[in-house]
Amino acid sequence: MNTYDLIMKKRNGGILDQEEISYMVNGFTNGEIPDYQMAAFLMAVYFKGMNHEETTMLTMAMADSGERLDLSQIDGIKVDKHSTGGVGDKTSLIIGPILASLDVPVAKMSGRGLGHTGGTIDKLEGIPGFQTSIEESRFIQQVNDIKLSIVGQTANLAPADKKIYALRDVTATVDNVSLIAASIMSKKLAAGADAIVLDVKVGSGAFMKTVEDARLLAKTMVAIGTLAGRETIAVLTDMNEPLGNAVGNILEVKEAIACLKGYGEQRLMEVSKTLASYMLLAGKKAKDLETANQMIMNAITSGRALDKMKEFVQAQGGDASYITCEEKFEKAKFTVEIYGRDLMQSKEIAANQTKVYLNCCNNQEIGMVSLILGGGRQTKDSTIDLTVGLELKKHLGDWVEMDTCVAVLYGNDMEKMQEAKKRFVCAYELTQDKPEHNPIIYEIITKSDLENE
Amino acid sequence: MNTYDLIMKKRNGGILDQEEISYMVNGFTNGEIPDYQMAAFLMAVYFKGMNHEETTMLTMAMADSGERLDLSQIDGIKVDKHSTGGVGDKTSLIIGPILASLDVPVAKMSGRGLGHTGGTIDKLEGIPGFQTSIEESRFIQQVNDIKLSIVGQTANLAPADKKIYALRDVTATVDNVSLIAASIMSKKLAAGADAIVLDVKVGSGAFMKTVEDARLLAKTMVAIGTLAGRETIAVLTDMNEPLGNAVGNILEVKEAIACLKGYGEQRLMEVSKTLASYMLLAGKKAKDLETANQMIMNAITSGRALDKMKEFVQAQGGDASYITCEEKFEKAKFTVEIYGRDLMQSKEIAANQTKVYLNCCNNQEIGMVSLILGGGRQTKDSTIDLTVGLELKKHLGDWVEMDTCVAVLYGNDMEKMQEAKKRFVCAYELTQDKPEHNPIIYEIITKSDLENE
Repeated sequence: MNTYDLIMKKRNGGILDQEEISYMVNGFTNGEIPDYQMAAFLMAVYFKGMNHEETTMLTMAMADSGERLDLSQIDGIKVDKHSTGGVGDKTSLIIGPILASLDVPVAKMSGRGLGHTGGTIDKLEGIPGFQTSIEESRFIQQVNDIKLSIVGQTANLAPADKKIYALRDVTATVDNVSLIAASIMSKKLAAGADAIVLDVKVGSGAFMKTVEDARLLAKTMVAIGTLAGRETIAVLTDMNEPLGNAVGNILEVKEAIACLKGYGEQRLMEVSKTLASYMLLAGKKAKDLETANQMIMNAITSGRALDKMKEFVQAQGGDASYITCEEKFEKAKFTVEIYGRDLMQSKEIAANQTKVYLNCCNNQEIGMVSLILGGGRQTKDSTIDLTVGLELKKHLGDWVEMDTCVAVLYGNDMEKMQEAKKRFVCAYELTQDKPEHNPIIYEIITKSDLENE
Repeated sequence: MNTYDLIMKKRNGGILDQEEISYMVNGFTNGEIPDYQMAAFLMAVYFKGMNHEETTMLTMAMADSGERLDLSQIDGIKVDKHSTGGVGDKTSLIIGPILASLDVPVAKMSGRGLGHTGGTIDKLEGIPGFQTSIEESRFIQQVNDIKLSIVGQTANLAPADKKIYALRDVTATVDNVSLIAASIMSKKLAAGADAIVLDVKVGSGAFMKTVEDARLLAKTMVAIGTLAGRETIAVLTDMNEPLGNAVGNILEVKEAIACLKGYGEQRLMEVSKTLASYMLLAGKKAKDLETANQMIMNAITSGRALDKMKEFVQAQGGDASYITCEEKFEKAKFTVEIYGRDLMQSKEIAANQTKVYLNCCNNQEIGMVSLILGGGRQTKDSTIDLTVGLELKKHLGDWVEMDTCVAVLYGNDMEKMQEAKKRFVCAYELTQDKPEHNPIIYEIITKSDLENE
């Protein structure tokens, strides 16, 4: 077997077998296959695709390229959640404490943010004292003790994915469904959970812009998870605007706390509850969706989810008093309010129009607004400002008058804030007639959706 | 401008402009663009192609990446010939002396063989004393003195092509018409001739397996040459079997000498005369094809072409007595004859069949036979045995009986010769009915064929 022949085979539309895929993944990971051959191979995969079997074999080879996290010391069914990445997505911070309070073990290794999407680990570091670098044994002990731990990735999980992703990132081979699915699922499989609930984002702030694309990715990942013997469920959720009101690390932690206190924004709560419900089902803690929903509502209204959040923060060295009193969190120096008139001016709406609707927005641009303010990473080595970001006061479909406050920007640099304001204003489209609402949950994909094909 | 965006643009089927193509070629040549990005780009070009304008801009950028040979010190119109590569192709050794004897200056920088195709420089080195490394000034002086010099490439011509070709060779991106055309034409343009006659090979021993593919490559190259202000003519010639009888370095030199003495195999002479005729026309030494043909026949029958060969060999330090008496050339130690029965046995022809026709052959395999015997290079660093090779006694369409000698192998290692014999025998297909002849010249492509489109 040689690399040239395998590039040629895929280039010509051939189907690779187990041995051939392992050869490529292992050869590249251990440095025997040079970058340039892997780059050509990935571009050939971009054009010729991979079928379900190939994608699964690719995923397995990547998952097997490093350590696999051993969660067998944790009691009960371990359910992991993964989001394909969006703007303002703080569901892990809400779901974790809810599930843990309902006796579902949550052992999560999470990533940092890159580009226009945020990362859970960055957000948690906004809580003074909170430690995200924890030894594996302590991590497992904590999950057994209080059912919840969220830490940064320490183990050498799926190094093949890391290396392949870095190459895809500079060779324009990122947006291929097989490669995306294998990247996500290889890490999830290596992370050791028994069941996986996937939050596949759809819309202008997500990788997948259409429901069709998202459905294909979801089905691919559910197929892989199923073949790997893990119950896998995918929920397609809307990402045509930020999820909830807050975008920015500390702002999002505060919003998550508000949700646990029962003040959650409607769409954010809908997504959180749906994901949590399927996790309860997968964890065999609820017999049906209705029961699951009831349990979740009860965890919030009883205050047990919030108590779990405090317990979790304390266990990882954080100051739990911040959870009780969100006003203690560090704030950005400046705020800039954006009004209806700012949006209308930029759109040259007819002078006699005084009331318009927010029709749609380029949500990736909203993510970029937070990044410009200093809340995101341009490259892996950027440092981020945890205090900055924005808070939406209006959502898509809402009407807006000249002096309606649409959003507030939080920043520490007035120049950046002016640039951010311009980007924000340009990101929205207005309309004179009330637009249709996007659904917040589009579809659920489970194993049975594959069997129907 | 950045590399990532250009890979993405081509991947998405975009058309690149002058500046973008120069950016890629120059960036890669000077090391600013890494191999892996160029590999991804080349694979995107493989799938999305390049139009005539892009291909021409690519060629120019590659031709401009190093030195351009200055032939202005040579009197007259300089006409270059290039073959896309085949098995047994010794036309340069025949055409050179003929044209020089007719006062057409031939200043040729030639390559070495690689894989199943041979190189003119290797063949010339079979003549004792012959020097292929000659300084540029002496090279030019020699052309002015005797109208003919053939040397190995010394100048740094089109280094971008060298670097890009090496990458294509290991990333399965060789067989794309734009990349092939740009590779050939960039070297030809840098080599400085005023007019270019291209011998585009078609068939099982050539890169282009069909007339359609060869025509497309020919038109692409003629378009590039024309846009670059060089008269360019392409001749599509058959490569479904070796050209002439001999395959192997010294064996081919001897066959070329035989041609100059008037004993040339018919198809080999047909190709040589056609190419030489178009070169005479391009060099303004003949007013039409008929005159050109007459001049060529006369050069051979008068012995002036053979005299020119001796003069040329002597000028480059070779022993010209070998040209007079071919029997002086070094011979391989062993010969193995291949008979009709060897071919028939391998094909399990019905026992009562005693006479069959050679229907077709895998000509690339015949090239491999010579390579196995030691006459070719597996890699660029291989050393070659100039004495080995094979001589065909029968051609496609000929009939063969059990005891008809079809070919003779020449070698210095009996084990290799047995392997070579097996490969040779398997390369042929037999038939009971007389098959159709392949034409030897398929088509001529000139500028006017482009204008008709």
